This record gives sequence, structure tokens and C-alpha cells, in this order.
Amino acid sequence: MRVARFSLEGNVGFGVLDTDQDRDEPVLDVVRGHPFGGVERSGRHIPLKAVRLLPPVLPNKVVAVGRNYAEHARELGNEVPETPVIFLKPSTSVVGPDDPVPYPSFSREVHHEAELAVVIGRMCREVPPSRAAEVILGYTCANDITARDIQRSEEQWTRAKGFDGSCPLGPWVETEITPERAADLAIMCTVNGEQRQLGRTDEMVRGIPELIAHITEAMTLLPGDVILTGTPAGVGPLEIGDEVAVTIEGIGTLTNKVVKRD
Amino acid sequence: MRVARFSLEGNVGFGVLDTDQDRDEPVLDVVRGHPFGGVERSGRHIPLKAVRLLPPVLPNKVVAVGRNYAEHARELGNEVPETPVIFLKPSTSVVGPDDPVPYPSFSREVHHEAELAVVIGRMCREVPPSRAAEVILGYTCANDITARDIQRSEEQWTRAKGFDGSCPLGPWVETEITPERAADLAIMCTVNGEQRQLGRTDEMVRGIPELIAHITEAMTLLPGDVILTGTPAGVGPLEIGDEVAVTIEGIGTLTNKVVKRD
Repeated sequence: MRVARFSLEGNVGFGVLDTDQDRDEPVLDVVRGHPFGGVERSGRHIPLKAVRLLPPVLPNKVVAVGRNYAEHARELGNEVPETPVIFLKPSTSVVGPDDPVPYPSFSREVHHEAELAVVIGRMCREVPPSRAAEVILGYTCANDITARDIQRSEEQWTRAKGFDGSCPLGPWVETEITPERAADLAIMCTVNGEQRQLGRTDEMVRGIPELIAHITEAMTLLPGDVILTGTPAGVGPLEIGDEVAVTIEGIGTLTNKVVKRD
Repeated sequence: MRVARFSLEGNVGFGVLDTDQDRDEPVLDVVRGHPFGGVERSGRHIPLKAVRLLPPVLPNKVVAVGRNYAEHARELGNEVPETPVIFLKPSTSVVGPDDPVPYPSFSREVHHEAELAVVIGRMCREVPPSRAAEVILGYTCANDITARDIQRSEEQWTRAKGFDGSCPLGPWVETEITPERAADLAIMCTVNGEQRQLGRTDEMVRGIPELIAHITEAMTLLPGDVILTGTPAGVGPLEIGDEVAVTIEGIGTLTNKVVKRD
């Protein structure tokens, strides 16, 4: 099941991606309330083309993991860390599918980082790896956009990875991927249609259950919180005007255009 | 004006600290709605002793500044950084006055850090230092509780400074401190009544207007977001059972007890 969040004429809601058999067009089956704690479909269909897709969740926090693919750590001259490198991206960094990403004024080297995002389904803390699957609502695509020059010059990555627009999420949450499948998905990033990153989630240094255990040892996760699981090798620069797309097998494609910040 | 957030019989609201003249007791004058965009007092009084004080705001994000007092940077063997060190504490780290602070399971060296907290009053980005005062609702006390051993062993400070309970805030927001006065307030931390930290906000390496400009160059701040402005020298360990109190001149005292995490 693919659960999208959308706006239509000023209203915001969730909907399940479906096909209208009569008209043979993709629609959203509107969800009653929200998808946390169980999805209740209303049977009311809205054509997908009529809505604006929003970030599929509005996370209270985005917890991200650095250097979780060995080849990517090496390409930036880093070792694989002994304990996972955890950082936060604020909710104000989140944008949705097809939203513009404003190039930050304080950087001259902005990079794409395609990542598998885990969407948390229930409030949880101290989750053992064996129970991690229980707290996952599903998966979506993310782009952990990074001001690489600022990341190099500032010890903490808050400004480098937390600026407005630096966390595109979408296009929807895929809820039917098993933990085993999530651990072996192709992940790709293209810029203007040209492939830049290509990897598989089985290259992760630490898998999703271990990351959830590590994070929730310290902090409670809330429904809608998002975990970014690291990026494979091939990161590189984005310029104003570029169209960057993150595609993950079994989920979909998240596309954003880099624009001049107004 | 001192604006507190409180719960009473399951309801949450804001109130302005006042004195009931007839009974000569401190009361909260209940605020209609919320204090952002102007405080409207209802005239309905609730005795202060009848309510539970909550964190005075529920921040979407807490943006904190490291090494912003030169003597504190030195006591941990660090230089004063060329650009401010910015990090995030998640909303799940926030607790209120008199709330327990659970000692994290993954640390053996938890420190207090008394800090002046700036509460943001309106959505803003790219705020020049000359206009910083316009986006400030007021000031409160904060304790940037830190797992010092984890801070040393992990490159990013997310787990060391973002665990549940690591951000006590309160007891209320003082809205009548001028920017000039905020730049020269005594700030103190005691543990079990014994003084551990004592400084003045005039020792800050970067003042509040400069910090707001630096942060909002990268990220939008929302009403209720909080900026922690750094801690003076004298940080030290907290043990289970300790009562830690942060007092700031003209604001009040924020007290919390360190407890065993259940």
C-alpha cells in the first residue's frame, strides 16, 4: 500500500494510491484521519493529477545516519565510524515531491545524497533490533542535501545539512516492504536524467534494525518521525536549475528542482 | 510579563504570572489561545500552586550553540570556534520545571550546562542582527544536559545532547527583558544547593542578535522554537538523586531532579 499526503483546495489529507477501474486513471483513496495506528480507506477517490503531493509525513524530527555505506565514506576520505554517526535535520528542512530546493546563500558546493527513509509508525524508545519492524510504518525516498563546503568547515553538521529545503521526502510511504526486502533494494540518484549514484541497501554498514535500536536507546521516536539511512557512493554537486531524482526499487521516484533562493 | 504553560485536570494552557490581591497569593491569569502574536489575558485566575507547570513552550526545534563562553571552551580543552558551533536538540528532549531527568543508560558522565534560552515569537528567516529583537518573544532558563563521555566519543553531538530529558526549559518566558539587559544577566547553576556555575551573559563570544542572524541564514525559525546560547564555565557531573537548578537574573529558577531511567 502506498500512502501519500496531499493538499487540495486548501485541505490536507492522506490517501492510498489506487487505480480507478472505470476511468483507468491513478487516484487517491482518501484515508479517514491519519495512517498511524491503521489505515481506514473512505472509498472516496480523488484523481492523483488533481492534487499536490506533500511530504508524505510531517516529521517532528528527522534522524539521519552518516557514513553508513563504506564506499561513500571512502569517497569523502573518511573511515567507517566505530559507532553510527547520528545527526538531526529539522522539520523546517523537509519539502515534498516536486517542491523546489532553494540553493542556500552561504554555500558554494551543494551535494545530492540519495537515501532510503524509514517512516516511524508509533511512539517508541529502547527498541531492540528484533522488534524494530513493529515500529516502522513504511519506507520512502529521501535526498539528504548537503552543503559540502560547510560540512567540511563546521564541526557540527547542523547548518550544512539542516537548511531550508535540504530534506526532500516522498513521493509516498510504501507500507508493504518486508524488513528483508528493505535490506536489499536498488537506490539511484540522477541529475538531469544522468545517473550519479547507484547502490543497494545491502551495502549499509549497519542495517535498519540496528540503527533504530541505537537511536531509540537515546531518544523517543514519534509517529511520523523519519530515519535517513545513509547514502551510497557517487555524491556530487547540484547547480541551480538542476533536476535531481532519487529512485528506490519498489517505492518510486522523488524529483526536485534546485532553484535560486529568493 | 511572565508567561507560563500549565496543565490542570488534563487541560493545557498559557497563563500570565500575577498576584491575587485579595488572597495575596501567586496566580496565573489565563491567556486566551496562545501568546504568539500578542497576549490576551482573560482575567480568570488560577492559583499557581494548583497547576503543573509545563515547558513554557513546546518547541518544534531547539537550536543550541556550543563553546559560546571562552572560559567554558577552555575548561574542556577547546578553542573558541571561528564560526559558531550550532547543534540541534529534538523536541523529545524537552522537559519542564520540576520534571525528572532520567539518567541515560548509555552514559556514565552526565553534565549540567546552565544556559539562557531565547524563545522565538514569530516565523522568520534571514534576520539581520539589527532586527533580531523583533523575532524574540522572551527568555527562559535552560539546562543543556550533556553526556560528556558520549560527546567525546561521537563526532556528532546528537546522542550526547539529544537524549530524552536532556533539555529542561522553564519556569516561564519573561517577555520584558530588553536586548541590552539580556546581554548582561547573571546565570548560575547549583547542584543540591551548592554553586557550580556562575557567569554573566556578557561573556558570550557571540551575542544573541549575531546568533539569530547566523542560524536564520540557514533555517527558518518557527514560533516557540528555542535558541540555547551556550554555557559559562563550571560544568560538571550530575548523579542520580541530584537536584540541579539553573537561575538567571530577572527570569527565575529552573529545578530538576536526576532520576534512574525506568
